[in-house]
Amino acid sequence: MGEFETIARIRQMAEKIGTFKPVSLGIGDDCCLLEAAGDEEFALSTDAFVEGVHFRLDYFDYYQVGVKAAAASLSDLAAMGAEPAGALAAVSIRREDAETAIEDLAGGLIETCGRYDCPLVGGDLTASPGPLVVTVTVAGRVKKGQAILRSTAQPGDEIWVSGTPGDAGAVLAVLEQRRKSKTASLPEFDSTLLGRLLSPIPRLAEARLLRQAGPPTAMIDISDGLAADLNHILEDSGLGALLFARKFPLGEFQQSVAAVLGLPKDHFFLHGGEDYELLLTIPPGVLSKDAGDVREITGTALHRIGRLTGKKGELIVQREDGRFEALRKTGFDHFSSIHSGR
Amino acid sequence: MGEFETIARIRQMAEKIGTFKPVSLGIGDDCCLLEAAGDEEFALSTDAFVEGVHFRLDYFDYYQVGVKAAAASLSDLAAMGAEPAGALAAVSIRREDAETAIEDLAGGLIETCGRYDCPLVGGDLTASPGPLVVTVTVAGRVKKGQAILRSTAQPGDEIWVSGTPGDAGAVLAVLEQRRKSKTASLPEFDSTLLGRLLSPIPRLAEARLLRQAGPPTAMIDISDGLAADLNHILEDSGLGALLFARKFPLGEFQQSVAAVLGLPKDHFFLHGGEDYELLLTIPPGVLSKDAGDVREITGTALHRIGRLTGKKGELIVQREDGRFEALRKTGFDHFSSIHSGR
Repeated sequence: MGEFETIARIRQMAEKIGTFKPVSLGIGDDCCLLEAAGDEEFALSTDAFVEGVHFRLDYFDYYQVGVKAAAASLSDLAAMGAEPAGALAAVSIRREDAETAIEDLAGGLIETCGRYDCPLVGGDLTASPGPLVVTVTVAGRVKKGQAILRSTAQPGDEIWVSGTPGDAGAVLAVLEQRRKSKTASLPEFDSTLLGRLLSPIPRLAEARLLRQAGPPTAMIDISDGLAADLNHILEDSGLGALLFARKFPLGEFQQSVAAVLGLPKDHFFLHGGEDYELLLTIPPGVLSKDAGDVREITGTALHRIGRLTGKKGELIVQREDGRFEALRKTGFDHFSSIHSGR
Repeated sequence: MGEFETIARIRQMAEKIGTFKPVSLGIGDDCCLLEAAGDEEFALSTDAFVEGVHFRLDYFDYYQVGVKAAAASLSDLAAMGAEPAGALAAVSIRREDAETAIEDLAGGLIETCGRYDCPLVGGDLTASPGPLVVTVTVAGRVKKGQAILRSTAQPGDEIWVSGTPGDAGAVLAVLEQRRKSKTASLPEFDSTLLGRLLSPIPRLAEARLLRQAGPPTAMIDISDGLAADLNHILEDSGLGALLFARKFPLGEFQQSVAAVLGLPKDHFFLHGGEDYELLLTIPPGVLSKDAGDVREITGTALHRIGRLTGKKGELIVQREDGRFEALRKTGFDHFSSIHSGR
């Protein structure tokens, strides 16, 4: 049983046993929603960032661990269309590292949370007998009924993505190859590309503009890979999707890495993950004009890469030569042996 | 530098760098408080429960890990006088244990959260390359300005405690001795006492009644030990305390364990921790009548064990023979070598 089946089972258990009071939205989206007084809801999300699973201290320093752990959680608020309110961080760290590392780690957390107007307001600091584990919980506010869910996409909607997903995955692949000393002919990357992996930008400003322009009918942030995360929208909305390969905004670097590793050129774009870009669905035509404004204001390009179909569970890509191909829907699954080496 | 000095430093960093927007209460109490619409605040708390630090799978099964992780976080809501709204759990678990253990663990979390009307509404499930780490974040609601803080105790207030702190610590001491095969002459305990360690009861009902009766001027839940947690109130309120040893509700079991281990009979009461009982301060006379009602309704006794003084930083116990003695203020410190074997 994989991670997502397990989560589905836990969700069933929670709905059966535990939910004695109504909450606006429970397990299964980027955030849950709790009713608040007035016309607000509180969006909450928690994410564990685990050494040896999500990162290695070979290529992350402690400050960057803090930055990325915070950014990944803030990204969940963006994906719900919520405005940040505050963050909590539970840090479990080896005793011998605590003295030297904790200030760097806390600095990364506090500065990143502060930058996105989501002050670090609480936490827990414990020893760890093993890996460093940083669990960041974020709280945000959203007007009642205006959170952007995964389950409300409509057939015919356009599929858009922010930025250039795949860069983070390609950088990670190079770092992992180097770690195994398989350095031959791997492309070099600059600090901007490295930043795509180490310090992703939670797309809160972009989400704010998208809410005004659309709003999107559904939205998710890309953590497990575009195909896997799109599939969450498809499953929760009971729809299918058709992607157009010629529309994919593939950077040169990720294509070079894919070529060296013998992978399709859009491998990292579709399956890389960790970019924390926004993937959204929106009725046809709505974003055509506004996408330019979003880019002008935020510097982030938005690309239309496909559309939703009524064919439940179908995820198809049209290749540049016109062929249609079913797409693998799986991304990073913590309990799948395929990815266990990652 | 110890855990609490580190937290103080992180708090300073957060206040200096990160807090760009006002929050009702930041780092340093049982919960932080976020302003909500209307007359509410949201109380949030996060706690990591780490294998090999907070528990061992020698004497906790996975279900009990879920129960205790949930109870410990719910206890923070009780200590603030907040009403539970919802919980999130981030679980990092060894891949090879996930299949068999996750349902038990989730069951313990979901049932405990559900029992206290705090449905599990979200979470994160990841692999762990080492220990099991369960981080539970709870959210609760409290009327604006009515949260019970650590910093608002007054000189002359009485100090009260719920239940019989020390049992959990004494049971843990026996289990640890047995683990090291030092079983000679250690007292036996029944399942009720074992439950004090494995499945503490978050004192939410008691806190509700105390709010109505008092409210308390300050409150905290006992996780690190009564003396250490009382000291948090003293430091944050700028006060001292005088405890009366003859008032301590010491159970027979914890006294027996202390005797065998060559410790003072109130060692576990003062320094044991992990009971998740409430420690509170309240103006003189207010609870004298209501304590009986609390016991009748909840089954939990409340004991007056001392009073607050204006002598900042002084923590004194009057022994049964009349002598005054300064009390050690430290409890379980994750980064202190003294306790690293625990």
